[in-house]
Amino acid sequence: MKRTRFADWNCSVARVTDLLGDWWTPLILRDAMRGITRFDEFHESLSLGRNTLTQRLERLVEEGMMERRQYHERPPRYEYLLTEKGRDFFPVIAAMMRWGDRWLADGDPPLRLRHMTCGKVTTPTVVCSVCGEPLILGSVHRA
Amino acid sequence: MKRTRFADWNCSVARVTDLLGDWWTPLILRDAMRGITRFDEFHESLSLGRNTLTQRLERLVEEGMMERRQYHERPPRYEYLLTEKGRDFFPVIAAMMRWGDRWLADGDPPLRLRHMTCGKVTTPTVVCSVCGEPLILGSVHRA
Repeated sequence: MKRTRFADWNCSVARVTDLLGDWWTPLILRDAMRGITRFDEFHESLSLGRNTLTQRLERLVEEGMMERRQYHERPPRYEYLLTEKGRDFFPVIAAMMRWGDRWLADGDPPLRLRHMTCGKVTTPTVVCSVCGEPLILGSVHRA
Repeated sequence: MKRTRFADWNCSVARVTDLLGDWWTPLILRDAMRGITRFDEFHESLSLGRNTLTQRLERLVEEGMMERRQYHERPPRYEYLLTEKGRDFFPVIAAMMRWGDRWLADGDPPLRLRHMTCGKVTTPTVVCSVCGEPLILGSVHRA
């Protein structure tokens, strides 16, 4: 199936979509963010074919979101570590989680997050960087 | 191409991925959020085939993110309006935009947002709902 490439559109949402459109990719990132690093652990967590998993991880390495590192020589074994660019994707995953918890979960959210800075159970909230008020549709315009 | 269905996984990220994995979908939502409502306007904005566009819009209606309304009788013409659930997806799009602006844009961000509440050019920021500090990876744990 040939896909339109959004990577060259002059739109950040399109470019992120190009990346996330590789199906599985947000779930690989989710797993990496909860501490999974080894190929076999991703494989086990996601029940994803080894070829597809390899492809997705390699795309993330190419995009600079992960680094591949050999942790065992014989046989060769690799782990994949988030880079700064990859770690900085966490707020996007957190915003997805908040929306999914509110609108798609049956009853209680599947997972709750505790913010270690304040010690409380937290809901990721998207706010204005200047005034700190929640950003809602209709409160922003093209500048 | 048969895809794994993530909708039934007990994970909000997986469920959102199931929705966004319909390629194009985040871009349809982006357009709806900047005020596009009519089928022909989406068609023109996205240069997307009419069949695929119809499918994607219908999925968004089924998911309760958009409502379809007839605005012209002969010939019949339809518009698609965001529901509360669809409008509440804005923070996810905003978080995607912020990350894409930082990591994928060539030079200046393609689009800047002004927050009408405070009047300033804003960067969507994901924070803790309790203490207001930015949520970064490593500052949250499973509760």
